[in-house]
Amino acid sequence: MTASPSGTTEVYVDFLCPYAWRGVELAAVLRQEGQAFRLRHFSLTQGNHPDNAKGTVWWLTDQPLGEGDRFQQASLPAFLSAQAAARQGEEQAWAYTLALYRAHHEHKQPLEEATFVQAARDAGLDLNRWEADRQDESGLRASLRADLADAAEIGVFGTPTFVLPDGSAAYYRFENLTRDPDTARQWWALYGEVLNAGAGIATIKRAKNRPARRS
Amino acid sequence: MTASPSGTTEVYVDFLCPYAWRGVELAAVLRQEGQAFRLRHFSLTQGNHPDNAKGTVWWLTDQPLGEGDRFQQASLPAFLSAQAAARQGEEQAWAYTLALYRAHHEHKQPLEEATFVQAARDAGLDLNRWEADRQDESGLRASLRADLADAAEIGVFGTPTFVLPDGSAAYYRFENLTRDPDTARQWWALYGEVLNAGAGIATIKRAKNRPARRS
Repeated sequence: MTASPSGTTEVYVDFLCPYAWRGVELAAVLRQEGQAFRLRHFSLTQGNHPDNAKGTVWWLTDQPLGEGDRFQQASLPAFLSAQAAARQGEEQAWAYTLALYRAHHEHKQPLEEATFVQAARDAGLDLNRWEADRQDESGLRASLRADLADAAEIGVFGTPTFVLPDGSAAYYRFENLTRDPDTARQWWALYGEVLNAGAGIATIKRAKNRPARRS
Repeated sequence: MTASPSGTTEVYVDFLCPYAWRGVELAAVLRQEGQAFRLRHFSLTQGNHPDNAKGTVWWLTDQPLGEGDRFQQASLPAFLSAQAAARQGEEQAWAYTLALYRAHHEHKQPLEEATFVQAARDAGLDLNRWEADRQDESGLRASLRADLADAAEIGVFGTPTFVLPDGSAAYYRFENLTRDPDTARQWWALYGEVLNAGAGIATIKRAKNRPARRS
């Protein structure tokens, strides 16, 4: 596993996932409050691939661009574009990730080249550097592979999954979006309480026909 | 759906499930504190049956006793024995359910006839009446079927699943056992907070390779 600074929470995300978007927005608010988060990538296409039922043998990073179903074709270049953005630094990684999530899930733009370029502009990236870094496809695949390998070792199965500094890790799916610091702190504190509870909570999951109400 | 008195939380359980045991123990403590719970039955064998992937067509209550895999063969008579105990009243239903859970999960007794009889004794049932009620197998199957049908309508997929008076329903899996009132209240309050949170929490579930630590 690659190491994060102690005290850092890792958040595994896939650009395909609207719940990961909500998780990234939550983490972004908490970062403004001084809490440390690190973005990591987990592939739902890989995680749900039938060849991977007993362990990962099919890796997204081994697939050519432009192959597979539409989710695979959308997510691989999105991940690689974000890996390129991250080479400009942590703030740029967050800015690009937020911009791409908002473009796709808030503004319903497809995960394709024009959207990546617009997100890079919106994020204020150095565009020439970003385009140059994108040419190093093998390097970007290698850094994506490191994320996917760590996710597989942890047993991530959905996004967003947060890995706390103490090593506890859980999928946290919530329906609503907040950019309010007080609200974000409450939602985050409750998640921490569940993971730290003396009960040893493994799962709280709503029954299939009783979804959470949107507030 | 059959109606419970308002203010009553229903708890769906399967005698096969060690997490349902912990849930029943929690509810039993809270009942002593004056909170209303009603026992309901959900069948994991039915819920996980491959024929039921798109809706329930295979019902445990349509199966002969003594057929199917060992889980099916253990759970059907256990459910029916508990349905018979419930005819003696709510307190007797709880006493029998607790006795049978403890026999199976705490004392590692198999779910079979000798264990049912011992649990009935431990629960202080009227044994003659219980044995007579057990002869009404079609009636017991009908009341079990009502539970299974309600569970299917709610979308229960695991045990224990609690259905709160407001209709919200979620699987609550925790690793540890408590019979302490203060602890039980805390664990229950946290579950309620998750279901009522403004975030609209659908799922908190640990990553597969990071189980909850037992305290």
